[in-house]
Amino acid sequence: MKNKYTLGELADYVNGEVHGDADIVVSALNGIDFAQEGEITFLLDLKKVDQLEQCGATACIIDKNAPRVAVPVIAVERPDIAAARIHTLLLNRPFTASGIHESAVIGNDCTIPREVTIGANVVLGDNVKVGERVAIHAGAVIESGVTIGDDTVIHARVTIAHDCVVGNRVVLYHGCVIGSDGFGFATDMYGNHITKPQVGNVRIDDDVHIGACACVDRAAFGTTWIKSGVRIDNLVMVGHNVEVGENSVLVAQTGIAGSSTLGRSVVLGAKAGVNGHVHLDDGVMVAAMAGVHNSQPKGAQLGGIPAVDVKLWGRTAAVQKRLPDMHRELRALKKEVDRLTSLLSEDTEGE
Amino acid sequence: MKNKYTLGELADYVNGEVHGDADIVVSALNGIDFAQEGEITFLLDLKKVDQLEQCGATACIIDKNAPRVAVPVIAVERPDIAAARIHTLLLNRPFTASGIHESAVIGNDCTIPREVTIGANVVLGDNVKVGERVAIHAGAVIESGVTIGDDTVIHARVTIAHDCVVGNRVVLYHGCVIGSDGFGFATDMYGNHITKPQVGNVRIDDDVHIGACACVDRAAFGTTWIKSGVRIDNLVMVGHNVEVGENSVLVAQTGIAGSSTLGRSVVLGAKAGVNGHVHLDDGVMVAAMAGVHNSQPKGAQLGGIPAVDVKLWGRTAAVQKRLPDMHRELRALKKEVDRLTSLLSEDTEGE
Amino acid sequence: MKNKYTLGELADYVNGEVHGDADIVVSALNGIDFAQEGEITFLLDLKKVDQLEQCGATACIIDKNAPRVAVPVIAVERPDIAAARIHTLLLNRPFTASGIHESAVIGNDCTIPREVTIGANVVLGDNVKVGERVAIHAGAVIESGVTIGDDTVIHARVTIAHDCVVGNRVVLYHGCVIGSDGFGFATDMYGNHITKPQVGNVRIDDDVHIGACACVDRAAFGTTWIKSGVRIDNLVMVGHNVEVGENSVLVAQTGIAGSSTLGRSVVLGAKAGVNGHVHLDDGVMVAAMAGVHNSQPKGAQLGGIPAVDVKLWGRTAAVQKRLPDMHRELRALKKEVDRLTSLLSEDTEGE
Repeated sequence: MKNKYTLGELADYVNGEVHGDADIVVSALNGIDFAQEGEITFLLDLKKVDQLEQCGATACIIDKNAPRVAVPVIAVERPDIAAARIHTLLLNRPFTASGIHESAVIGNDCTIPREVTIGANVVLGDNVKVGERVAIHAGAVIESGVTIGDDTVIHARVTIAHDCVVGNRVVLYHGCVIGSDGFGFATDMYGNHITKPQVGNVRIDDDVHIGACACVDRAAFGTTWIKSGVRIDNLVMVGHNVEVGENSVLVAQTGIAGSSTLGRSVVLGAKAGVNGHVHLDDGVMVAAMAGVHNSQPKGAQLGGIPAVDVKLWGRTAAVQKRLPDMHRELRALKKEVDRLTSLLSEDTEGE
Repeated sequence: MKNKYTLGELADYVNGEVHGDADIVVSALNGIDFAQEGEITFLLDLKKVDQLEQCGATACIIDKNAPRVAVPVIAVERPDIAAARIHTLLLNRPFTASGIHESAVIGNDCTIPREVTIGANVVLGDNVKVGERVAIHAGAVIESGVTIGDDTVIHARVTIAHDCVVGNRVVLYHGCVIGSDGFGFATDMYGNHITKPQVGNVRIDDDVHIGACACVDRAAFGTTWIKSGVRIDNLVMVGHNVEVGENSVLVAQTGIAGSSTLGRSVVLGAKAGVNGHVHLDDGVMVAAMAGVHNSQPKGAQLGGIPAVDVKLWGRTAAVQKRLPDMHRELRALKKEVDRLTSLLSEDTEGE
Repeated sequence: MKNKYTLGELADYVNGEVHGDADIVVSALNGIDFAQEGEITFLLDLKKVDQLEQCGATACIIDKNAPRVAVPVIAVERPDIAAARIHTLLLNRPFTASGIHESAVIGNDCTIPREVTIGANVVLGDNVKVGERVAIHAGAVIESGVTIGDDTVIHARVTIAHDCVVGNRVVLYHGCVIGSDGFGFATDMYGNHITKPQVGNVRIDDDVHIGACACVDRAAFGTTWIKSGVRIDNLVMVGHNVEVGENSVLVAQTGIAGSSTLGRSVVLGAKAGVNGHVHLDDGVMVAAMAGVHNSQPKGAQLGGIPAVDVKLWGRTAAVQKRLPDMHRELRALKKEVDRLTSLLSEDTEGE
């Protein structure tokens, strides 16, 4: 069973225009290196337009300003978005509820609708509330008091610790940990660490994706809050009491220390680090491997450790390579200036 | 059921002094933004003392030198420590042993006292020794030959590989991996890697906490050793044969390469890296995202990649931003000195 | 039951030469600090030759150019390789198939030979093909359509997502995640992220090792490909559509962004980062914590963020520390040159 659509239907769906036969039917989308007959492909880089001629695809999604090509196309303003939407449409299947696997362990007083898939060896604690059309895959552990919204997918071996709240259409990838204790302690004069109990929780709003082996710690008090539409990549660390604003993006292996807040559409490049107790305002962009120590105004773009304006960082990095030369030149210059100075002082003495 | 204490009792417990009615009873501790009647809060930042007036808390833990406030207080030298201790006391419940869940799989010849909680789908290998009042939560895997001390908590989906030794009052958070093989191989002239078998183990002493998805590798020979009181945050990597001294702190996403040793109370900031085969002596502090290449004496404070004295690093970082300016100035200066040089050489020639 | 070999047999096995009694029997290999009677040890650092005299080992593997020592030795060209090979030989046991544990959950239409070990609470999806002498340890989840080659070891709590292909003699360590979705989306003008479905897979060739909690994402289209002999350490992130060439080494906490390709025997030091869509050719070596932005030719050696030639980086780092001094000197020099300039211009004016 495959979904099938005509180019005309698909063009309507993404607000595009067909050039060629609008009645052609496609049943799948594929990359330009892989596409075959009956499949639609997409072209993001117009320099690769020649590749399209040799490709087996039946049709192509293309920029509306692209030159005309031999294959039928759907011309759109944003071919990347159109391809993503059409691909999702073509893959779309009605939710098939497998029910609760016989090996799953379900606690007391859980709320589980009929339309769910709860996989093998899943463990639910007590008082877990599961939404409609939720899939919880093999080996996931959902501790007591957790609430999960509708249409959410929890992949194999995810852990959600007690009392966390997960929204609708959330995707939690394999092995991520939601709601482990924050890293909180007070250190006494003997160097002993006295644990600060972490009694808050984690709240994950709608349409958030969290990557494999990523960790979002529960708040000391209150809530660590991942707002709607946020995308978190693999192996990311979000500390306790952090807030991540709507549609922000945390690329792989980034870390945010405790109590920092991110506005909307903040982007942290891979392996970036954000200090604790700072605020990155809406639209802040941090380059990969940068370390942000201080709060940043709306739209700031940063790079380096410690992070500075990204353009300054670029210029600095360019000069950095010449540091050994600069050091040598500086010494040579100093020598020459000393010579000139003594020459002129001799002059003066000689007068 | 909640614990209840009078302010007088709590003050005695933390060696503090009550200002106000010592017979007032509190049953919980909460953050200043959340505290309600019947709860005690705490104030660490005296600038926020106004917030206290509006807070619903019945009492407050406060610095003994703070000005008097309207609410009853427990005045102490270290309000952070007092709050942590009182919070823990108020949350404290007698250990409730749930026994061994029917879905748990227990190997041969294990030693398991009656007072334990072994959760759903936990797997214990053969010859595992479990201490008194231990809780092993859902989906954890404890391989053969592991020993676990008293009062230790092993959260969901932890793995402890074979023959590792875990002390008393240890907390292992969700998804961490103790005792995976060290990264050891010899590479031959053809580029092939010949595995060096890793036949040592990991020893975790009393009162250690290890964060979610952190990894501590087993030794090639002997023991990778995490000493008492150490706190390890999420996603930290500890290589084979490393020793981490008492009360050291490894913040999130740090990494320590093989065979390095840390003294007591060493602090590695988030994402810091420590080279292999080096020694960081007692009290060394490494800034977040720094990379330490060499051994460091007692109390050294470091920052940057490669790490240098943290004050030098601070000064360097401040100058770094001016590098493009310095480069321009240096060129201008060189030009001017060349002009002066030729001017003076003309002078000389002219004589 | 232990394996036992004479020094003569072992010397033949590693193409070495016995100095001493070739009929001496050893049954284990151990580190020089641990070795006892009946065990063979090895010496890599000839400065430690004195340690050997006090060591309880019955024999030693040593460099063929080493001075003669009191204990019987096997002299070889590469004692590290010889030790690794002899250690493996001495530990070697015939595969003991435990069969399928009664708590394991096996999907439909799986191919499972008789000679396997499938541990407690393992979950296999549908259509999983398992090779000969494979061990899948407790709590691992193998999703539908996965193929696993012969003699492969899958440790506890590993996840292999649907349709991935794993070769022969592969070792996947605890908690690693193979085949989670790549981090792919298109962002519209409102900041919403539209998911790009990730329909490719991961292919892991023969003799690859992947560390604990490491993540290798599935391709958007096609295959994320880890080629034969690659060693990946703990907590490493490999993005979608990446190719890692034969025998490459990714040390702990490194990350490779999407669509980048590595040639043969590339080495990425700990915490290094590689940008997306670049190519590192054969033998490229990247220092720990370096960030590589651009493609690199065969054999390039790099360090720093952004990464430059490792020697230049070393010189730069050395000068870096003097930056505050340089800044001060530059200002002093400027002042002096200004003075000289005005002196000379007075001279000129005075004429």
